[in-house]
Amino acid sequence: MVDIASRVWNHKWKIDPIVRSLIDTDFYKLLMCQSVFRNSPDTHVTFSLINRTTSIRMAELIDEGELREQLDHIRSLSLSRGESTWMRGNTFYGKRQMFRPDFMDWFENLRLPPYHLERRHGQYELTFEGKWPEVMLWEIPALSVLMELRSRKVLEGMGRFELQVLYARAMTKLWEKVERLRDLPGLKIADFGTRRRHSYLWQDWCVQAMIEGLGDNFTGTSNCLIAMRREVEAIGTNAHELPMVYAALADTDDELRNAPYKVLADWHEEHEGNLRIILPDTFGTTAFLEGAPDWLAGWTGIRIDSGDPAVGAEKAIEWWKARGEDPRDKLVIFSDGLDVEKIKALQAQFAGRVKVSFGWGTLLTNDFRGLVPGDALSPFSLVCKAVAAEGRPTVKLSDNPNKAMGPGLEVERYKRVFGLGQQMPMQVEV
Amino acid sequence: MVDIASRVWNHKWKIDPIVRSLIDTDFYKLLMCQSVFRNSPDTHVTFSLINRTTSIRMAELIDEGELREQLDHIRSLSLSRGESTWMRGNTFYGKRQMFRPDFMDWFENLRLPPYHLERRHGQYELTFEGKWPEVMLWEIPALSVLMELRSRKVLEGMGRFELQVLYARAMTKLWEKVERLRDLPGLKIADFGTRRRHSYLWQDWCVQAMIEGLGDNFTGTSNCLIAMRREVEAIGTNAHELPMVYAALADTDDELRNAPYKVLADWHEEHEGNLRIILPDTFGTTAFLEGAPDWLAGWTGIRIDSGDPAVGAEKAIEWWKARGEDPRDKLVIFSDGLDVEKIKALQAQFAGRVKVSFGWGTLLTNDFRGLVPGDALSPFSLVCKAVAAEGRPTVKLSDNPNKAMGPGLEVERYKRVFGLGQQMPMQVEV
Repeated sequence: MVDIASRVWNHKWKIDPIVRSLIDTDFYKLLMCQSVFRNSPDTHVTFSLINRTTSIRMAELIDEGELREQLDHIRSLSLSRGESTWMRGNTFYGKRQMFRPDFMDWFENLRLPPYHLERRHGQYELTFEGKWPEVMLWEIPALSVLMELRSRKVLEGMGRFELQVLYARAMTKLWEKVERLRDLPGLKIADFGTRRRHSYLWQDWCVQAMIEGLGDNFTGTSNCLIAMRREVEAIGTNAHELPMVYAALADTDDELRNAPYKVLADWHEEHEGNLRIILPDTFGTTAFLEGAPDWLAGWTGIRIDSGDPAVGAEKAIEWWKARGEDPRDKLVIFSDGLDVEKIKALQAQFAGRVKVSFGWGTLLTNDFRGLVPGDALSPFSLVCKAVAAEGRPTVKLSDNPNKAMGPGLEVERYKRVFGLGQQMPMQVEV
Repeated sequence: MVDIASRVWNHKWKIDPIVRSLIDTDFYKLLMCQSVFRNSPDTHVTFSLINRTTSIRMAELIDEGELREQLDHIRSLSLSRGESTWMRGNTFYGKRQMFRPDFMDWFENLRLPPYHLERRHGQYELTFEGKWPEVMLWEIPALSVLMELRSRKVLEGMGRFELQVLYARAMTKLWEKVERLRDLPGLKIADFGTRRRHSYLWQDWCVQAMIEGLGDNFTGTSNCLIAMRREVEAIGTNAHELPMVYAALADTDDELRNAPYKVLADWHEEHEGNLRIILPDTFGTTAFLEGAPDWLAGWTGIRIDSGDPAVGAEKAIEWWKARGEDPRDKLVIFSDGLDVEKIKALQAQFAGRVKVSFGWGTLLTNDFRGLVPGDALSPFSLVCKAVAAEGRPTVKLSDNPNKAMGPGLEVERYKRVFGLGQQMPMQVEV
């Protein structure tokens, strides 16, 4: 018999909100936010959405009204009591009170700042301007919304059984991946797939599948809301936006060259242990490691997020050796474009030589490739980046020139300052 | 675990359609439609929505866009194969092939004609113009849509538990009525509540409650879709619109005086047995019965739909006696403003003297009185009537002057022609 009250309740919603919580975001965003709130609370930044897969014409696919409704809904969110309690009381990386009371007081009263939305050349120009600690929190929900609105658009035309079979296939596909990963002894893997997930519910399902399928080999999720609800570890450290903004604020070439180390010096003051993870590729890994101060070699590990991951890891191993560190004590986190084959190969190459860990993103939470006609649900490369700080453009070089961004002249200056030589272009898939 | 496919499916709907089938309508509409299709297929009529409870300002309560979406959705409906099979193959009142093949061919290809919607003085002016057999089918879905949009508006502000408790109370309330009706031996009662129901799902629940609670004493429902799905009898005969339109088309006072009998003469040709039910009150019961031809006294029964029902029934009994008929062979159907107390009183007064039957409407399918603050869900008096035929206004007098409608001068002419004396005004509740 139909439960009329539930039916009425479910159909009352004007929209089906995609992002329903301010902590439906990546853990490193909150960590960085606290850091920025402490070190650069008044820095004025601009974040901007960039669709690197231009063949997908977002503004033709997604209704502007629906997009605005979803973004407006996010602006109505504030931290709930339970979320605040979790952030204040939970143990993160073995530490209590990771989030300081002054930061929590501020975060509890936060609403996300306004957004600016225009359509141009079949794409959405979605930008966020304002104080860095506020604006930066738009990145993940903005990406989640656009990714899921795109999924919904494709699902819109499908029948009830088609949907049932689609999800049955996607579940089968993921479960087969999980079963293959089970064979890897000592695997350590986490979910990093919030930003490009198929949908919230799907990411949540994937995390539960990993919990059941991998047991202790699954180390947690970058998504705070899911970490809280599924009672697993929240995972993440820091990202490119810190060196990008610090670099943009540099007044001289010397300051620019020093900016990435300045970021980590600030981080060093705030965090210890497993949170001391170097992200070296913002302006090229090689030069970064060569110029790094010795105290950085004492850090716990490194995250390889662009370029050939095996090359990057070998480079880190050599660097640690050169600095008198034993690589077997060091953690290497792979987080770029992973799928089962690549995970298996990297695990085979590096297990025993370093501590290996994986942050599995898009192909965990959005592998619908081959499941619908025209591959209309396959993932694509959407990012939301800091593009300016105090009116100056930011630059990212990375270890893959196809991931570089920034105005041409500035990119050239950065290449000169950071002594970037020839790079190997690699296809950016997801 | 969330069934993601079902969640996606449920949330894909742009609207939650209120009317989802062309047979989500009263059975008598289809019977009359077949009659009109045969006798007056090209007569041009206008139906209009009239809210007799002017204190409820529909246009302020209900969003025009939502109303249009619902009405547009109804225009997209056509008879489904299963619905057609049911109409062609089912037994109605013991008779197979009640609906003739030529009518079914026409009905299978029907889409409802355009509507005209304006706002005036806080109310909606909703009118339908065109060929009678098409336009007349708007009446019930138009009323259902407006009633349910009003319910939804009130429910919109309610929380999940409030809703659960609201429906729990409404269910309790109805079940207590059913239990009281169980005590009445020989009761015959049907659901006549489509037009003013709280919602489709609620009417469907009420019918199921009656099936379980009253067994064979529940004789069926006027709603064809529910009759089909719950496998109970579809109930209904004819309504005021037939004499109203026939009367409007009359060229002389003599033709006017004869119009109500002309309606029933046409009906006599088409139907027999339990479908031969007189609805005498369109222009006053007393004069109608006095002037009725003898063959009408041979009909199966009478339906009392306005005025004091006991007075109307006594009048019918006297009339049958005067025409040499035995009232104990005759059926009296009460269908106006019924609730348990009135049903019990009428059953007590007439059982044994005539065959008694009840068509229970609004207070079966929409008794939410006293369940929300300000009684915002209590039923109200909304009708959709034929207001003109071939450009001439229609008139209804009924046995309650508060239910009279039509232009003043015409009402006076009809009163004169039909010899209507003083009437007792009664409150129109539902």
